[in-house]
Amino acid sequence: MRLGIVQFDPEFGKVEKNLRVALGLAGAVEADVYILPELFSTGYQFKDRPEAASYAEELPGGPTTDALESFCRGRGCYVAGGLAEKSSDNLYNSAVLVGPDGFVALYRKTHLFDREKEIYDVNDEDMFRVYDIGFARVGMMICFDWIYPETTRILAVRGAQIVLHMANLVLPYCQAAAVTRAVENRVFVAVANRTGTEDRVPDETLEFTGASVIVSPKGEYLLQAGETDEGCWTVSIDPTDADDKMATPRNHLIDDRRTELYGALVEP
Amino acid sequence: MRLGIVQFDPEFGKVEKNLRVALGLAGAVEADVYILPELFSTGYQFKDRPEAASYAEELPGGPTTDALESFCRGRGCYVAGGLAEKSSDNLYNSAVLVGPDGFVALYRKTHLFDREKEIYDVNDEDMFRVYDIGFARVGMMICFDWIYPETTRILAVRGAQIVLHMANLVLPYCQAAAVTRAVENRVFVAVANRTGTEDRVPDETLEFTGASVIVSPKGEYLLQAGETDEGCWTVSIDPTDADDKMATPRNHLIDDRRTELYGALVEP
Repeated sequence: MRLGIVQFDPEFGKVEKNLRVALGLAGAVEADVYILPELFSTGYQFKDRPEAASYAEELPGGPTTDALESFCRGRGCYVAGGLAEKSSDNLYNSAVLVGPDGFVALYRKTHLFDREKEIYDVNDEDMFRVYDIGFARVGMMICFDWIYPETTRILAVRGAQIVLHMANLVLPYCQAAAVTRAVENRVFVAVANRTGTEDRVPDETLEFTGASVIVSPKGEYLLQAGETDEGCWTVSIDPTDADDKMATPRNHLIDDRRTELYGALVEP
Repeated sequence: MRLGIVQFDPEFGKVEKNLRVALGLAGAVEADVYILPELFSTGYQFKDRPEAASYAEELPGGPTTDALESFCRGRGCYVAGGLAEKSSDNLYNSAVLVGPDGFVALYRKTHLFDREKEIYDVNDEDMFRVYDIGFARVGMMICFDWIYPETTRILAVRGAQIVLHMANLVLPYCQAAAVTRAVENRVFVAVANRTGTEDRVPDETLEFTGASVIVSPKGEYLLQAGETDEGCWTVSIDPTDADDKMATPRNHLIDDRRTELYGALVEP
């Protein structure tokens, strides 16, 4: 299958333009599964919760999901991308997975970053779900979720072959850590990051680091985008490579976990 | 405090020589805490369990621990190093932590690597303990334990400021992954690896990768040894840097874990 990453510089608040740019980039290159950045259709830096609420969409439904559904319907492909979600009075930093038959799944960011804690509600559901979309079994995570090894671990334990990581990264560690996440779990890790700068909030200039990556279960970079490039790049992968969990002839990386000794991981 | 790493090429079976070389290297450079590689006094590649048993030592007691105790007594320092342990009929890939007042603690490798499964017993105890040795709060892990993020995570949750990692690495990922382990937990990670080659077992030539590292809680390499260098290198660190878990003004990396959603980590 072909896995594609879209990296670009969304313009804050210009939903129609951002959808056109992102899907234009994606549409120019053929892939079976595309990943778009976190909050790709609105931009990242909401001034406050009411402003985020004014852009949030119900899921499914809303212009972003609709546009992704149209894109997938004609092409027989899947797209995952991040957006602000409204659900009754709640507001989440979320992502959707959409396919040729429409909406597939929703993910809500589990580990909110910095000022997001003042904007979004905390997701209290176990959203670490794995979806078999025919091409592969996939799971989703959003940006800062990466720094918690628990996120990728649970997706891998539940059978994900590819972790679709939608990001607006401002810290420098994630693209290198994607190798660790890949090798410790023997999964593909695909990070779709954005480029550009946002400085709508006083004393909060955000420089997004681009450099999107796709890493194989053996820790090889299959794709490394530039820090400021905009584009869509694809790689051809065999998702079943992620089913081989043997680090040595005697070490199955998932089965060899000593879960009976890991209680401290879930103590409050 | 000064943290030291000893990297060298132990000669298989020459316990007296290896102790002399390792402690000679350490003794030439002043440090408060030294880390020696896994199985540093015997070498790694036992042909089988009986051979390992013939070199294993009771802990405390035995020539290796005795030599470490003598070394520390005169210097007021601590040393952690790996060795084969005999405990009644059991055999473990273990490490000791020794200080100016003698034996402090024992660690048994939790995740056995490859043919070690045929040589050593599986440790069934929660060995992820943290020891306050005055200079710092430290925890231990041995070689392949690194690939399980659970190991470092639990030590960090329990308050370790420095993870003392004794290694005989043959896979290429660990030294880079030490940065991930450091930043995801905001701890110092100190990897004492060995150099050289062992080929005592047919079809099992082991090339040890050297390149020992010390990484700060912010992910900076404070020390990177060469792949074939032998020596002892030290860095001056403030262990309380590891007490600052704030990745942003609003993100405490330990407290922000969503343990209530991580049940899958401990399901069998």
